[in-house]
Amino acid sequence: MRMTKLTGKTLKNIEDEFNIESQKLLLRSAMFRNISPGVYSVLPFGIRAINKLLDLLSDQLEREGFQRVYIPSDIEFEKSVSLSLRNDMKSYKDLPKTIYDIFSSGREKIKIKDGLLRSKDFTTFRTCSFYENEELLLQGYENIIDFYKSKFCEMGLDIFSLKSYNEKNPADKADELIFTCGAGDRTIYSCDKCEFRTLEEVADFYVQQYETDDKEIEAVHTPDIKTIKELENFMNIKAENLAKTLLVKAGGEIVAVVIRGNRELNPYKLSSILNVPIRDINMAEYEEIDGNIETVPGFVGPVELEGVRIIVDKEITSVGALVTGANKKDYHLKNVKYGRDFVGDLIAEVSYIMDNDKCPVCGGSLDKEYGIDLGKILSLGKITDVKNLQYKDKEGKSKGIYGASSYIDIYKLLSIIVEKHHDEDGIIWPIKVAPYHVIISILNTKKEEQVKLGENIYRELKSRNIDVILDDRKERAGAKFYDADLLGIPIRIVVARGASENKVEFKLRWKNEKEELDVNEAIEKVLKLLKIY
Amino acid sequence: MRMTKLTGKTLKNIEDEFNIESQKLLLRSAMFRNISPGVYSVLPFGIRAINKLLDLLSDQLEREGFQRVYIPSDIEFEKSVSLSLRNDMKSYKDLPKTIYDIFSSGREKIKIKDGLLRSKDFTTFRTCSFYENEELLLQGYENIIDFYKSKFCEMGLDIFSLKSYNEKNPADKADELIFTCGAGDRTIYSCDKCEFRTLEEVADFYVQQYETDDKEIEAVHTPDIKTIKELENFMNIKAENLAKTLLVKAGGEIVAVVIRGNRELNPYKLSSILNVPIRDINMAEYEEIDGNIETVPGFVGPVELEGVRIIVDKEITSVGALVTGANKKDYHLKNVKYGRDFVGDLIAEVSYIMDNDKCPVCGGSLDKEYGIDLGKILSLGKITDVKNLQYKDKEGKSKGIYGASSYIDIYKLLSIIVEKHHDEDGIIWPIKVAPYHVIISILNTKKEEQVKLGENIYRELKSRNIDVILDDRKERAGAKFYDADLLGIPIRIVVARGASENKVEFKLRWKNEKEELDVNEAIEKVLKLLKIY
Repeated sequence: MRMTKLTGKTLKNIEDEFNIESQKLLLRSAMFRNISPGVYSVLPFGIRAINKLLDLLSDQLEREGFQRVYIPSDIEFEKSVSLSLRNDMKSYKDLPKTIYDIFSSGREKIKIKDGLLRSKDFTTFRTCSFYENEELLLQGYENIIDFYKSKFCEMGLDIFSLKSYNEKNPADKADELIFTCGAGDRTIYSCDKCEFRTLEEVADFYVQQYETDDKEIEAVHTPDIKTIKELENFMNIKAENLAKTLLVKAGGEIVAVVIRGNRELNPYKLSSILNVPIRDINMAEYEEIDGNIETVPGFVGPVELEGVRIIVDKEITSVGALVTGANKKDYHLKNVKYGRDFVGDLIAEVSYIMDNDKCPVCGGSLDKEYGIDLGKILSLGKITDVKNLQYKDKEGKSKGIYGASSYIDIYKLLSIIVEKHHDEDGIIWPIKVAPYHVIISILNTKKEEQVKLGENIYRELKSRNIDVILDDRKERAGAKFYDADLLGIPIRIVVARGASENKVEFKLRWKNEKEELDVNEAIEKVLKLLKIY
Repeated sequence: MRMTKLTGKTLKNIEDEFNIESQKLLLRSAMFRNISPGVYSVLPFGIRAINKLLDLLSDQLEREGFQRVYIPSDIEFEKSVSLSLRNDMKSYKDLPKTIYDIFSSGREKIKIKDGLLRSKDFTTFRTCSFYENEELLLQGYENIIDFYKSKFCEMGLDIFSLKSYNEKNPADKADELIFTCGAGDRTIYSCDKCEFRTLEEVADFYVQQYETDDKEIEAVHTPDIKTIKELENFMNIKAENLAKTLLVKAGGEIVAVVIRGNRELNPYKLSSILNVPIRDINMAEYEEIDGNIETVPGFVGPVELEGVRIIVDKEITSVGALVTGANKKDYHLKNVKYGRDFVGDLIAEVSYIMDNDKCPVCGGSLDKEYGIDLGKILSLGKITDVKNLQYKDKEGKSKGIYGASSYIDIYKLLSIIVEKHHDEDGIIWPIKVAPYHVIISILNTKKEEQVKLGENIYRELKSRNIDVILDDRKERAGAKFYDADLLGIPIRIVVARGASENKVEFKLRWKNEKEELDVNEAIEKVLKLLKIY
């Protein structure tokens, strides 16, 4: 490519203040143009950068037997793929079946300061895989995580996967691919002693054991006391010694959830435990409670509570003397003890992590970090919502099909690469993902020998299938150096005064040193470098 | 590609009855799968066919200096491109600027029986070009038409361009690319004597001259006569001797349009003439007329009509004695003559063509045909709706920029290619657009020598960069022949009994003859064929 032909002039300054630096570079380097708040078009240099990433992902997946399809947006992705391929998965011989798809779409909620991390339009690289049974599904699921991790590592990124909430199939597993970054909008807790790391939404934490004594349960008259705060004051106790009993509507069922008074219910965890989509998890309305369940709003407690399943947060089982509602107007109970005074239908971890909670693995302290979620892998378990999605096994028996899907946000991927690899002058592309490997700058286009040598090197490198860009513009030398640094092409060859003696200046974008080389030496060095990386 | 690895099994039958045959073949060959009414996903063979078409278009455009960008859908395409590139077009040296874009989107109105010609999702290949002045714009506009025509010709299609309505810029020119096809939904009139062809919406026709006499204008009492039909009976005349005067709201203005009584107003033509978008062309409401214009609804006529511009259909100027409304309740005028009794502010062709109208060029008879609109080219004229879209000319003077855009529907393009190139057994790909050039069928995969020879030819052709597919499935010979015909790969090499003597069967999809060839002869023949086409 010749820079005189490349559409998209670099910019010196960007007015917008972004949460992270890379967003400025994506605009200044003319990969993207902002055309209205949160809306970006992609210019040729950006198209090239994006296609490079897509090719790296696609090529590897194609080698692993994934095939590209195009899935329209009318129906949920996983369901559309299942419908499209169900006739191609009638026998165990047809499985596993693995596809990928590149999809551009628009989101409702944009965040202008996040730039391309949360722009109106985005491009998703998606996969969907089908397996014979759960074991093969889990294996395939891990393979997909490993595939992304290793590809992102090649792209110069440290990405880790964290357990996540599965919005397609709440009871099933999901992982998110996370890049840590101070300006990220996802909260991560990580142990300062062991390897434990968790996303806030699904964070488990260390459940402490408390000393208990065996005082008898006792009713206390608490007239007009309804809030935790009022109760704390009235009984002179701390919220953590209280047990809140929340009546929650989960799908069609009302359940009572018992958590410590100082905690918040975690709807993601409850959704997973009950396998009810999070949109169907809501606090029960007064009218829904009244009549069906024998209790009094404001005084709900787990002791002798009838008519609902009781879900007890694991922490509750280890606290000694609790204060709970008495299911009777103006009364609470004190010295309530799990196991003796009430039991749960289900014991689970259903409350949100708080600062100062400890590592659930080793009890170490947890540090808070922030991260950007680059993508997600979802287990679909056995797919039951698609008619006739069945295969015949070796014995000719009809069986259900298991699935997994994954999503990568390509604009985020590009942003993160630039965020990780830049300095104050511009981008520093890792060689593997560089839109061009070499930039040749003809410093003075009025000098015939410089133009001739520059053109020769350009032709030579092109003939060897090297991605090269030639700065043949009639610009000042300073502007050319400025743009070369901003665009971040890894290898720079400057054709200047030495041209008459076939000498060029050779520089790597990530190093300060330049060296003067003979043209052939320079070309050899390019070939060698590209072989190594 | 190995057929054992290719996702998407061919189908024997498709239940749906489509308007055109190709839609069945696109589904039967597993290029597309129908997942809900009007909604299709694209399977790997389809992805390959589409990418081939996109590559053919892109490669040629790239050679001509067009660069690929991605334009989001939030704002109108042409406006988005202008906003994206206005900083790159500040000098005459930056022009012309030409880009293209590949865009997938969904349409509101689907037509299930049209299959992929009007499916929910579709992919558009779009271009946008910017020029220094109108002359260069017109030249660029013609170049784009020529580019598409020649590419489509290479793809084995006869496509012609017809003048069309320009919905972006009604006063400017537009062309549609049309494929004639009995089941198409666009009506075309074509002259049986000369080369004239026109789309119904914008069709001009031969305006006949009528003999006139010079009778005096005369008022006729026509109590309660309001419709053309009533007037025809009452006055015992034919509708064509009547002049309808329609009060039309065009944007903010009310205009009177005078056309013959037997004609319909053509809103496309009126939109172009007045340069008012068609959505803003409506019959004026009674309340809008009353008061402002001195007339009586039902008795509107052009004679002494004040307060509105009068637009006179060209045909009206050549008819002798007309009957018109008298702008007075219960009165019409007869013997009205254009020029003597009234004049128009504008004379133009504003009525719809009718069957039996003659060719406007030579007066010959017009035949009705049907066609499919594959794409459109639009002149944008001087672009005025984008702030700061200006360049400095050689003298440093600020000037406006001229533009043109074009749209091609890729699913339609693929459909039309298949429609044109198929027989009762399946598709017959023209070599230029064939997803694969060669199919090698190993007839009996249990015979080691057949497998070995098939694999050898496959490797050999792949190493020569030939797009080849290997049918290595454990299917019956009949199924392999059936699929090879259905998929329509141009060159078929069958490895059968002759394998032990290095003989294969060679067949071209579009010919009936087969020949037995030595393997090397067969490979030579493939190379020779691909060089010719």
